[in-house]
Amino acid sequence: MNPDRLTRQLAFVAELDRLKTVTRQTLLADSSRPENDAEHSWHVAVMALLLAEYAPAGADATKACHMLLIHDVVEIDAGDTFIHDEAGNASKAAREEEAAQRLYGILPPDQGEVLAALWREYEDRATPTALYADALDRLQPIINNFATQGATWHSNHVTADKVRELVKRIAAGAPALGEYAAELVEEAVRRGYLAP
Amino acid sequence: MNPDRLTRQLAFVAELDRLKTVTRQTLLADSSRPENDAEHSWHVAVMALLLAEYAPAGADATKACHMLLIHDVVEIDAGDTFIHDEAGNASKAAREEEAAQRLYGILPPDQGEVLAALWREYEDRATPTALYADALDRLQPIINNFATQGATWHSNHVTADKVRELVKRIAAGAPALGEYAAELVEEAVRRGYLAP
Repeated sequence: MNPDRLTRQLAFVAELDRLKTVTRQTLLADSSRPENDAEHSWHVAVMALLLAEYAPAGADATKACHMLLIHDVVEIDAGDTFIHDEAGNASKAAREEEAAQRLYGILPPDQGEVLAALWREYEDRATPTALYADALDRLQPIINNFATQGATWHSNHVTADKVRELVKRIAAGAPALGEYAAELVEEAVRRGYLAP
Repeated sequence: MNPDRLTRQLAFVAELDRLKTVTRQTLLADSSRPENDAEHSWHVAVMALLLAEYAPAGADATKACHMLLIHDVVEIDAGDTFIHDEAGNASKAAREEEAAQRLYGILPPDQGEVLAALWREYEDRATPTALYADALDRLQPIINNFATQGATWHSNHVTADKVRELVKRIAAGAPALGEYAAELVEEAVRRGYLAP
């Protein structure tokens, strides 16, 4: 065992704890509070395994699971950027790149490079695996928004056209789940959970 | 696509949200609040990937990661049982078995059986993979207890001999991590975080 290597790995494990304090816009399904990045990451990682049969040809569901486990780690430094926040999204890439350098730099270099590459593959959304992971990351908040009668959609004045754009991304990474999400969104509009 | 199959899978995904409301004894490292099962599961699942090089011969770190993602799902119904609660631990197995029947029964049967088998392998702690997963599940609360100057150890009157028993389980599933945990526990005693 190389003690310095283990020290770096456990320093990263300790740092990860902070993701539990990064809150998102989405509420828990019982509306009790906003969810945080760590529990969101858990939820979508489990979904990657459960819904693997809907992944597109060439996607690796296990790799998507691992990707989703770490996809929000940069938000320990960069914070969560709400998907409908245009100003925040303009500066997001630079803030997250800096965060990736610091956070993955805590790990032994070989391991930091592997995780940073996995995160960049997710961010680039150019492989079937990344598109599948992205679809799940888009689907989960829609499910929770529906369960909370559109809480976050209402409080952020989100309209159906914006959510339909996200549904296209779900369809791109998991066609059957895109179909399901499209129906859920139209049902949300009918019920008044989401403004037309 | 079989619509009934997808409906069952998404009902299970919705049910999973409740794990975010099951609180544990362990606090976050910043002492701000108790952690919940969903974020704990995320933390240990990432650890399974990061610390794979310390897994014993014959362990499958990817499988351990998946095992840890779902290891606490039964607590949606059965609640969290504190590891030093003797009365709670006497009834734990029966409560959790009933919970597994209901929760994994939400899924299509083939998938429910796979997840229930993965959970039972974890519970039995008889394979190298399950012992590795168990080691991480024991190590993470010790790391957080150390970070919080022994908050949960103090509030539950836990003494060093009890924690040393848990360290043996860490050593059984990941010898190098057991060595690290043993040092951490003795340091906690020296600093007064843990009663001798």
